[in-house]
Amino acid sequence: MPDNKIPEIVISRLPGYLQILNQMARKGKRIVSSQELAKLSNSSAFQIRKDLNYFGGFGKKGSGYQIFFLIDSLQKILKIDRVWQVALVGVGDLGQALINYMGFARNGIEIVLAFDENPEKIGKKIGPLEIKDIKSLETEICHHKVKLIILAVPESIAQNLVDKMISCGIKAILCYTPANLLVADDIRIQYIDPVKEIQKMTYYI
Amino acid sequence: MPDNKIPEIVISRLPGYLQILNQMARKGKRIVSSQELAKLSNSSAFQIRKDLNYFGGFGKKGSGYQIFFLIDSLQKILKIDRVWQVALVGVGDLGQALINYMGFARNGIEIVLAFDENPEKIGKKIGPLEIKDIKSLETEICHHKVKLIILAVPESIAQNLVDKMISCGIKAILCYTPANLLVADDIRIQYIDPVKEIQKMTYYI
Repeated sequence: MPDNKIPEIVISRLPGYLQILNQMARKGKRIVSSQELAKLSNSSAFQIRKDLNYFGGFGKKGSGYQIFFLIDSLQKILKIDRVWQVALVGVGDLGQALINYMGFARNGIEIVLAFDENPEKIGKKIGPLEIKDIKSLETEICHHKVKLIILAVPESIAQNLVDKMISCGIKAILCYTPANLLVADDIRIQYIDPVKEIQKMTYYI
Repeated sequence: MPDNKIPEIVISRLPGYLQILNQMARKGKRIVSSQELAKLSNSSAFQIRKDLNYFGGFGKKGSGYQIFFLIDSLQKILKIDRVWQVALVGVGDLGQALINYMGFARNGIEIVLAFDENPEKIGKKIGPLEIKDIKSLETEICHHKVKLIILAVPESIAQNLVDKMISCGIKAILCYTPANLLVADDIRIQYIDPVKEIQKMTYYI
């Protein structure tokens, strides 16, 4: 079980560190200092050392971090040293792009179920994945024991679908629907909303 | 000119408040308390009042906020009381989904230029938008005086394209490419990376 004392904000920064470390590893780099990691992650060396110290530190003072060891450790901590099967709910333009997104497979994320309510889409295949009727959502989610879903449906039906899936045991939602979902505290949600991200920048232009 | 003393973290929370306020307005609500806003934005009433106080407060103590007035004010602060023209760089599956995304138009974001390097795509139209050759990127960006771009190209070419566009005057980047771009301090970047968002949640499942 994860140690609940680790602040959420620390966990949320680890995937960013991991991405940078993977990029360095691909370039053949073996050792990285907290200063270098800080520069690329828009953070401070102090912050990086403090974050990593929650898990034991991973390095001797002054000698930097072994990149492969740190990647391996962070993957274990984040539980991404395995394949995660996810269900995609809503196969519009974005949903289709996500099914075709190579970044998922490269990072151990496998879309094993896809649902839509459009009769013209139901039964169609995108690669090996058949789009299923959204009416079978609960049965399929329960049967496949999927814990993680990607939501890309219109706002009007989002909350209702989420309530149903939570009753089938899902624990985490990557939400592309611009909604504010109400869920119990033990359900994780991360939102992706390009409009909001753009609106964080226009102030400065 | 925006007041530079307002912390970035405060600005970054305003689009979320705005989204909730718009949803309330659509449901016919006229007044909201900081407690209600806090609940829906996963924040605290104290935080909300503190954030809004940077701009004068918008409400009398104990009487709640006038939703329409607050929406109007936040839109002016964020400079989204106007249409923002953006250029899309990279028209793969995701780029095409973004061109078709209704949420942009609804929020005053207009994709006026789209670029790709694939000869089979160059010259094709998606709706009224013609995909242009990425070789014309600098000329077109300069000519249209676009300040905001959406980047959805492979990692290998991202930095080079960004450097070119910065020399043409772009100021902000919504980046779908899983890269860590190096840019000067006056250039804003927001990243969208579904893999990272999923990796923030798997720890808890």
